[in-house]
Amino acid sequence: MRYSVGVLGATGMVGQKFIQMLAEHPWFKLTSLAASERRVGKKYGEEVDWIVSREVPDIAKDIEMVPMDPKHVDADIVFSALPSDIAREVEPKFAEAGFVVASNASAYRMAEDVPLVIPEVNPEHLGLIEVQKKNRGWDGFIVTNPNCTTIVLVLSLKPLMDLGLRTVRVASMQALSGAGYPGVPSLAITDNVIPFIKGEEDKVEEEPLKLLGKFNGRKIEFADIKVSASCHRVPVIDGHTEAVWVEFDREVSVEEAKAAFESLKPLDLPTSPEKVIIVREEPDRPQPRLDRDAGNGMSITVGRIRKDGERGLKYIVLGHNTVRGAAGASILNAELMIKEKII
Amino acid sequence: MRYSVGVLGATGMVGQKFIQMLAEHPWFKLTSLAASERRVGKKYGEEVDWIVSREVPDIAKDIEMVPMDPKHVDADIVFSALPSDIAREVEPKFAEAGFVVASNASAYRMAEDVPLVIPEVNPEHLGLIEVQKKNRGWDGFIVTNPNCTTIVLVLSLKPLMDLGLRTVRVASMQALSGAGYPGVPSLAITDNVIPFIKGEEDKVEEEPLKLLGKFNGRKIEFADIKVSASCHRVPVIDGHTEAVWVEFDREVSVEEAKAAFESLKPLDLPTSPEKVIIVREEPDRPQPRLDRDAGNGMSITVGRIRKDGERGLKYIVLGHNTVRGAAGASILNAELMIKEKII
Amino acid sequence: MRYSVGVLGATGMVGQKFIQMLAEHPWFKLTSLAASERRVGKKYGEEVDWIVSREVPDIAKDIEMVPMDPKHVDADIVFSALPSDIAREVEPKFAEAGFVVASNASAYRMAEDVPLVIPEVNPEHLGLIEVQKKNRGWDGFIVTNPNCTTIVLVLSLKPLMDLGLRTVRVASMQALSGAGYPGVPSLAITDNVIPFIKGEEDKVEEEPLKLLGKFNGRKIEFADIKVSASCHRVPVIDGHTEAVWVEFDREVSVEEAKAAFESLKPLDLPTSPEKVIIVREEPDRPQPRLDRDAGNGMSITVGRIRKDGERGLKYIVLGHNTVRGAAGASILNAELMIKEKII
Amino acid sequence: MRYSVGVLGATGMVGQKFIQMLAEHPWFKLTSLAASERRVGKKYGEEVDWIVSREVPDIAKDIEMVPMDPKHVDADIVFSALPSDIAREVEPKFAEAGFVVASNASAYRMAEDVPLVIPEVNPEHLGLIEVQKKNRGWDGFIVTNPNCTTIVLVLSLKPLMDLGLRTVRVASMQALSGAGYPGVPSLAITDNVIPFIKGEEDKVEEEPLKLLGKFNGRKIEFADIKVSASCHRVPVIDGHTEAVWVEFDREVSVEEAKAAFESLKPLDLPTSPEKVIIVREEPDRPQPRLDRDAGNGMSITVGRIRKDGERGLKYIVLGHNTVRGAAGASILNAELMIKEKII
Repeated sequence: MRYSVGVLGATGMVGQKFIQMLAEHPWFKLTSLAASERRVGKKYGEEVDWIVSREVPDIAKDIEMVPMDPKHVDADIVFSALPSDIAREVEPKFAEAGFVVASNASAYRMAEDVPLVIPEVNPEHLGLIEVQKKNRGWDGFIVTNPNCTTIVLVLSLKPLMDLGLRTVRVASMQALSGAGYPGVPSLAITDNVIPFIKGEEDKVEEEPLKLLGKFNGRKIEFADIKVSASCHRVPVIDGHTEAVWVEFDREVSVEEAKAAFESLKPLDLPTSPEKVIIVREEPDRPQPRLDRDAGNGMSITVGRIRKDGERGLKYIVLGHNTVRGAAGASILNAELMIKEKII
Repeated sequence: MRYSVGVLGATGMVGQKFIQMLAEHPWFKLTSLAASERRVGKKYGEEVDWIVSREVPDIAKDIEMVPMDPKHVDADIVFSALPSDIAREVEPKFAEAGFVVASNASAYRMAEDVPLVIPEVNPEHLGLIEVQKKNRGWDGFIVTNPNCTTIVLVLSLKPLMDLGLRTVRVASMQALSGAGYPGVPSLAITDNVIPFIKGEEDKVEEEPLKLLGKFNGRKIEFADIKVSASCHRVPVIDGHTEAVWVEFDREVSVEEAKAAFESLKPLDLPTSPEKVIIVREEPDRPQPRLDRDAGNGMSITVGRIRKDGERGLKYIVLGHNTVRGAAGASILNAELMIKEKII
Repeated sequence: MRYSVGVLGATGMVGQKFIQMLAEHPWFKLTSLAASERRVGKKYGEEVDWIVSREVPDIAKDIEMVPMDPKHVDADIVFSALPSDIAREVEPKFAEAGFVVASNASAYRMAEDVPLVIPEVNPEHLGLIEVQKKNRGWDGFIVTNPNCTTIVLVLSLKPLMDLGLRTVRVASMQALSGAGYPGVPSLAITDNVIPFIKGEEDKVEEEPLKLLGKFNGRKIEFADIKVSASCHRVPVIDGHTEAVWVEFDREVSVEEAKAAFESLKPLDLPTSPEKVIIVREEPDRPQPRLDRDAGNGMSITVGRIRKDGERGLKYIVLGHNTVRGAAGASILNAELMIKEKII
Repeated sequence: MRYSVGVLGATGMVGQKFIQMLAEHPWFKLTSLAASERRVGKKYGEEVDWIVSREVPDIAKDIEMVPMDPKHVDADIVFSALPSDIAREVEPKFAEAGFVVASNASAYRMAEDVPLVIPEVNPEHLGLIEVQKKNRGWDGFIVTNPNCTTIVLVLSLKPLMDLGLRTVRVASMQALSGAGYPGVPSLAITDNVIPFIKGEEDKVEEEPLKLLGKFNGRKIEFADIKVSASCHRVPVIDGHTEAVWVEFDREVSVEEAKAAFESLKPLDLPTSPEKVIIVREEPDRPQPRLDRDAGNGMSITVGRIRKDGERGLKYIVLGHNTVRGAAGASILNAELMIKEKII
């Protein structure tokens, strides 16, 4: 069982992370790297400003980059690490041409007939694929994963839904890698916090409603909760830390929440971690440098669960933004589709 | 008009900040520096691990440190930069011996007969001094300022009280200097966030109720609001950034809030800034490195005021934690007492 | 005595520093800001990504940017903060049109008839101006200041020349602001050192020979010393730290070197610091965060002077790279030319 | 083949690194952890402020700490991560009691009858063990490894010795972990460089002469080279970067040096890396964040080899200071002794 896969937008931060994760993947064989015009025809290893580890993986070094055009890409699945505006044009072309597009881009996340999926949260939303193909007359299709901050948050919210979750407030302390490369100038963030990330709060407030919603066979009925976000950039390389307040429609104890968090089951997929949510008891965890790599970056870590008034709780949740929150999210979606025989 | 002043706990981070601010103060003349036993008799300039600027101010360099004992301190006012446990023992001795103790320590902040004061917020609470002196039979007295995170928050809450403020949630991103010196190890915070500061959330949740309460001639009636805090340390030298959610008992527009913030009047005191609250319109301000020194570190800066549901708002507030949030807070309190002829 | 001045390349890091320093200058009045085509006609305060302080100075906020063309610039002196390749084309046009060009760019530093000047080091090199004007038939002229790392180094070398200086080795730890804005990506430098700065070592090895050379009435005879540099970027905002080894043709004591450093006289110019070289005795100084602003950023600080073998010494020297090492260097050159009645 | 091993000074930074490396070691079984009096009897996992990875290894978690006394330690080999002053008293007691002491402490490095060893550099110096045992009448013995900065430097110097090495100048940019934990305060090093590390330069100047010297059957004849060091702390978590100038007694080309670096052979030992020295060709490598983990932290990386005058070269060398430079160094020494049947 080996699928040939390509990466669209291969030289950016998330593109690099895709390549790093795909280089050793048991099911996928990296065959195509698509990049912007000026890089076409050049070897990946010579063009990329590789920043995510010591070396470009051998499998990618000598791949000659191709244009972002279905005709030039030879693969069963393409992973998209494209900026939103480019994704909006490019991804439909690949889907139309029969590709499975597993996208980390935001362009189609909220489109009515495009699944927005976290495998442990809403695998049944993949049912939308049939709706999408019918709607659009495509041979292939687009499946998306959420924004990095949303994924970390929603993995922690999912187990709370059954406890009567009503409202969510989240203050994020987001890592530099979330802004891509070159991304945030060092002069802008050294000895500093930037309390604003363009477009981020909207995504964190909207996407969870779809993710936690119900697929009724035709479309997603959004969850009846309210999310309010305040998003901030901090001088951390990887790992988004989120301070979360939740209110329920009844009293919920710390123990109930903890049990709920730990009940979220991992899937039997290559990239799935042993534990989806790790709950830590230390007073000062999770911390990004210590906890981002838990479960090879695919676990999220929850800590400091505290009562907040009668019907509220507060806690900290942390996850690796470019692994669980981006490349790993798309790869896990592809794995799920293979297991579900959608691919 | 020159008062001789001393500093208790002169070598720590806040002690250094007191000395830096007092060195050029028009009303105060620095005469005494009290430190722990092992430093007594030594010259300040030779003992201190000075970290807040290029040089120890000339006026302090050659002062021989004295014990933390009223008999050895020659001053009208003592500023206390002591750790809470030591302050608990030392400050009453000074008050009993007739000193005015302007304290940044947390030991007596919540004591029923001790004023907890921010001059622009609750100057009338100084009325408690008479109650305190009567209660305790002291010649002197203790006046305290709040915790650094509380001060920055409450300066922004004060103008919102008249708009019907009901609940507050605050996620802080606090500077390293708030932990004193040596404080946070570099290995603990480089490329990291520590989502926990011991005792901090309790202070930020309790102190505002007293500060925003009413003095009825005998005691403080606490404000009927609810504050919930989540406190985090980030790799920033100075300046606490706080993401705030507020709910009102009615709808409040961004414009109303902005007008309220800008209406908070500065006092006619040497350390008072021209503007107490600076409201910035840029999408990405305030930022600690750029805004902490506004008003010589005595202004706070508010930005990103946004609607949050029907009766809510969210915004960012930032202030210099060791100036407005500590040394400058005590000094402003002392200036106010002089102006009010309490000293 | 007020000269109208313009800045070429006004929006970059050094351009911003020029504007900050010129905004309060007693002799200069900022009248023109020239920028790249896409910014022409726009107000400086609305276009610039201001990073060097809290606010764009009022005097610059509303200036409409003009093209980099002598016809559009109304000023007696233009300060150039241009990148080298653009400076190479633009600066001669201004000189030809009669402007005094005080340039921080590297384009003409090593040109035979262009003075490369540090006022305290080689003011007599301004004699080259006449040679230049004659050679080129220009009404105006170009005067340059050295690279930031060179300036800090050479200020410390100048007093050592009379002691028989032969060879110099310097390892620099250079600040982020030296790379301009956006400059070094935060992901590249967080928890990291980059042991390479393009073109830097060549500049640091060549420029000192000209600076410490003799003007013989026609050209500069280069100094007969050898400089070897290894240049590195570190996560520091401002302030270049340099570890220097020097060898002499005779034995030189630490005390002699110290006396020589302290003998370098300040000039009677507005931007000149009280002390050109500050020698510190503490074992762990100079440090960039503590010492870069000495003398308003125009002093350099030397420390840790140690014997190194029989005829050698080693020491640390530090200076503010965008003040003494860039904008302040050009401004000091202009002040010197005014004092010397060259302008 | 399993030896039981203990760690002296188990809770510090280097102690933690020993435990991390020993937890998965094929030849060693961790049995004893010795710590200061106040920790005796407590479980390691509950006492340590673990900072080097996400979790204390399972094997160490429940070990009850014992006093630093041979009677309480049950092991064949003890690894010493003690501060120098404590090592001076404690290590001889263990050696006298028959233990093999593999020490990272500086106390006995320069003692005449104590081997100071880097396995790839001077394995034959282990011959000193017999001299030591005879001299001191001990059943066991002490073997030391050099200072972290020295190890990285000397691994790169060893292959240059045959090319006629005469003098070495080294400017180090050292990581925070080299100062232990808590070590450098964050307020001291954020946005800063500290150009001084107590005692470091002496070690880096003296230890190489012993390491590169010859064992004549009775003692070490020091190498006839000269080393001059300037040591600096930078805001990097792990990995010492060193800028090196070397002079030879003849002309040496970049290619010769490169070939020499690559000729240094790895040993057939569990902790030995595949390549001892990795030479990189990129203009901007090695960098600590990207290269410190090469060879699981046991390789050093050399880059930027450049001519420097007629008989000189300059280059950058980088290594992991707590792995190759501390815990891994002692472990490699112990492995070598086992292979050489000394243990």
